[in-house]
Amino acid sequence: MRCEIVAVGTELLLGQIVDTNSSWMGGQLAQAGIDSHFQVKVGDNQARIVDTIRRALDRSDAVILCGGLGPTQDDITREAVAEVMGVALVRDDAMGEKIRRGFEARGRRFTENNLRQADCPVGASFIPEMPGTAPGLVCPLGKQVIYAVPGVPFEMREMMAGTILPDLKRRAGVTAVIKSRVLKSWGETESRLAELLAERIDALDRTGNPTIAFQASGIEGLKIRITAKAENAEAAEAIIAREEANVRGIVGDAIFAADEQTMESAILDLLRERGLSLAVAESVTGGLVGARLTAVPGASDVFRGALVSYASEVKFDVLGVPEGPVISADAAEAMACGVRERLGADVGIATTGVAGPEEQEGHPHGTVFLGLAHGGSAEAVQVRLPGDRRRVREYAVISLLNMLRLRVSGSSRSPELR
Amino acid sequence: MRCEIVAVGTELLLGQIVDTNSSWMGGQLAQAGIDSHFQVKVGDNQARIVDTIRRALDRSDAVILCGGLGPTQDDITREAVAEVMGVALVRDDAMGEKIRRGFEARGRRFTENNLRQADCPVGASFIPEMPGTAPGLVCPLGKQVIYAVPGVPFEMREMMAGTILPDLKRRAGVTAVIKSRVLKSWGETESRLAELLAERIDALDRTGNPTIAFQASGIEGLKIRITAKAENAEAAEAIIAREEANVRGIVGDAIFAADEQTMESAILDLLRERGLSLAVAESVTGGLVGARLTAVPGASDVFRGALVSYASEVKFDVLGVPEGPVISADAAEAMACGVRERLGADVGIATTGVAGPEEQEGHPHGTVFLGLAHGGSAEAVQVRLPGDRRRVREYAVISLLNMLRLRVSGSSRSPELR
Repeated sequence: MRCEIVAVGTELLLGQIVDTNSSWMGGQLAQAGIDSHFQVKVGDNQARIVDTIRRALDRSDAVILCGGLGPTQDDITREAVAEVMGVALVRDDAMGEKIRRGFEARGRRFTENNLRQADCPVGASFIPEMPGTAPGLVCPLGKQVIYAVPGVPFEMREMMAGTILPDLKRRAGVTAVIKSRVLKSWGETESRLAELLAERIDALDRTGNPTIAFQASGIEGLKIRITAKAENAEAAEAIIAREEANVRGIVGDAIFAADEQTMESAILDLLRERGLSLAVAESVTGGLVGARLTAVPGASDVFRGALVSYASEVKFDVLGVPEGPVISADAAEAMACGVRERLGADVGIATTGVAGPEEQEGHPHGTVFLGLAHGGSAEAVQVRLPGDRRRVREYAVISLLNMLRLRVSGSSRSPELR
Repeated sequence: MRCEIVAVGTELLLGQIVDTNSSWMGGQLAQAGIDSHFQVKVGDNQARIVDTIRRALDRSDAVILCGGLGPTQDDITREAVAEVMGVALVRDDAMGEKIRRGFEARGRRFTENNLRQADCPVGASFIPEMPGTAPGLVCPLGKQVIYAVPGVPFEMREMMAGTILPDLKRRAGVTAVIKSRVLKSWGETESRLAELLAERIDALDRTGNPTIAFQASGIEGLKIRITAKAENAEAAEAIIAREEANVRGIVGDAIFAADEQTMESAILDLLRERGLSLAVAESVTGGLVGARLTAVPGASDVFRGALVSYASEVKFDVLGVPEGPVISADAAEAMACGVRERLGADVGIATTGVAGPEEQEGHPHGTVFLGLAHGGSAEAVQVRLPGDRRRVREYAVISLLNMLRLRVSGSSRSPELR
C-alpha cells in the first residue's frame, strides 16, 4: 500500500509557511506500515493540482491532499478532485447548514462564501470528524482513493486519526493493531543506549514484535520507541507494558518521561506527589526554567516563583550570594539556598554559567553550574554543555530540571550530559 | 524561468526531520523573481530520484536537489544526477585532497568513504562555496541545469547565495539587483495596515518598483516587505530607503524593528542608548520575558533581572504588592514599582493575567494586565489576548515589551493588540 501526500498552497512554495503537516502525516503513515515514497507541494493552481494528483495516482494507491479546502476563491482542492474524478461538484445542503451552525456556535459572522465548503464531488463523502468549519473528503476512484483534509494542523490530525489511517489500514488489509510508546531519556549518548539495549534488541529482532527504535530529539534527549503489533489494542498494550518494564530495568533512571509527559510535567507531578514546593534562581538561563515549568497548566500548586539574578549585584543583594566569582559552584549553591529562603519554598534550584559567545570570569562558553538545596543539604555540580548560546541555555534548563528530578526521587546519578 | 526544488532523504518522508530547506529556498527564488511551481520530497532510492528529476525537467528549466551528497551508501544524489545526464561519475583528485585537508583542519578522523564526495558527473562542475565537507554541483543539461547541494542548512544557504541564485538570474536574463527590507510591526491588524497603506500601494503598482507586501508572522506581529529592483545594490538600497521613510511616515510607531532586529534587540538598544537599566516582574509569563531579553548577547549591560512571582505570597512578600486581587491593574503597577526597587533598576515592567485553560479571580483566560514604572510615574493597562495558554503567554510577552518600547521612546500609543 502506497500513499502519496500532496500539500496544496502557494504560501508553502513561497516559504511563508513551513510544511510541517506532510512530515507529521509521513510519520503516521510509517507507523501504520504504509509506504509513502513521494510528498509534493503545489500552489493554488487547478491545472497543476490536477496534474499532481494524476501523477500521484500513476504510482500510488492513495493520495492525501492537505490544504485548499477553505471558503475563498484560492481554495480549489475540491474543484481539482472533481476534475480528476471526472464528476460534478454538488452542494450538500445538510453540510451547508452544519457549517452555518458552526459559525453561530463560535459567535463568528457567517458569510455565504463559506457554503463552498459544503460542495462535494459526486461519489465522494465527507469525513465525519470536523473540528473546524471545513469538512474533509473521502473520494474513491476505482480501487484507488483520494482524501482531502484542511491545512489547519489540528483539523488535519483529527481527520487522519479518525478516518484516513483506519481506512488506509483496512484497504491495505492490515487487521492488526499497532501501538507504540515513547520513553524519553536524558543523560546518555545514543551509542551508550544502543550498547545497553543491544542484547535486548537482538532478541526482539528474532520475533520482530515488539520492536525498539531510537530517535534523537536534540535538546530533549533521546527517545526510545517501543512498537507492538497485536490482534487488538489490549493485547498490544500488554506487549508494550512488558517491554517497557524490560527497557526501564536496563536503562534505569535516565528515563524521565513517557509519551505526552515532558520533563517539566514529570517534575511537577513528582513534587506534587511529595508535597514539595519549588523556587528557582536563574542567571545564564534568564527565565527559561520558570517559563518551561509554567507552560504546564496547574504549575502554581508547586512552583512558587523564580529570581532571574542576571546582574551580579542582584545575586549578592537579593539572593545573599557571597561576593566573589559568580560563575562557580559556590555561587550556584548559594543561589539555590538563597532563592529557597527568599521565596519560601521547600526546594531551591539554581543555574549560573556562560552561554556565550564571549567567555566570562575565565570560563569558556558552555561552562554551567547547577545548584540544588533540598532538606538540610545543598550541592552544586559543574557541567560542560555543547553548542551556541541558544543550545547552551536550553541544555542548561533541561540539565537542571533533570538534576532536580534525580535528587527528589532519591537517585545519586550524575546530572552530567554524557 | 521555472525552478523546481527536490529534497532528498528518506528521513524527510518518515517525518523524522521537517523539510525547512525547501521553504527557505522557495522564499529565495520568489525574491529573485524565479517561479517555483512544485517542490518534491523523495527518499534515498536511485530510481525514484531519477524519476523525480526527469519529471521536474519536463516542466521546469532548472532543478535544485538538496540532500544525499554525504559519504555514506545512502547518499546517491550524485549517482542519480549522472544517470539523468547519461554520463559517468569521475573522481576528482584535487577535490578529494581538499576534502581530506578539510577533515584534518577540523581535527576529525578522515575515512576513505569521504572520497565519494569528490565524484563529479562528466560535464558538471563543483560549486565554489564549500563551507562543509560535501561539495555542491552545477550540472548543465542542454539549456537546462541541475544543481545539487547538501542538506545541511548553512552549507545549502551559502551555495544558494554564492552560486545558484546568481546563476539562475543570469540564465533568466535578470541583470537587475533585487533587494528587500522587512519592517516589523506590532499592534495593527493586517486589514488596518492594508487600509493605511492602500493609497501608497496603488501608487507603487503603477510603476511596479519598489513593491510593498504584507506577511503575517503570528506572535511576532505583521511584516511589511519593501522590495526594490535596480541596476546595482546602491541604487536598490536608495530606492528602499526612500520607500522605508514613506512607510514609516504612514504607519508610524507600530513599526518596532527592521530585518534582523527583533523586539528584544530593539528594546535593549533603546535602553542602552538612553542609559537605562531594566527589571521585570512576571506572573502569567513565568520567565518568558527575561528569557527573551537574555537571548540577545550583551543583554547584561541593560537587564538587571526578573522576579517571577508566580505564587500570590511572593507578589505580596517580595514585591510589596498590597494584599488583594492579583489579576488587576493595581497589582501590575505595584509589581512594576516593586521589582524596579528590589532589583535597583531605572525602569520596571510587569505582567499578571490569566493564561488559561481555567479562569482566575473571575477573569476569563486571555485577560492580561501590563504594568510599567519609569521615572516618577507608573501605569498599567488591561489587554485581551487571543488563543490558547501558549499563545496568551507569548502575546503577553511581546505586548509588554512593546509597551516598554513605546513609553521609553515617548509614544503615547496604546499597547493594545487591535
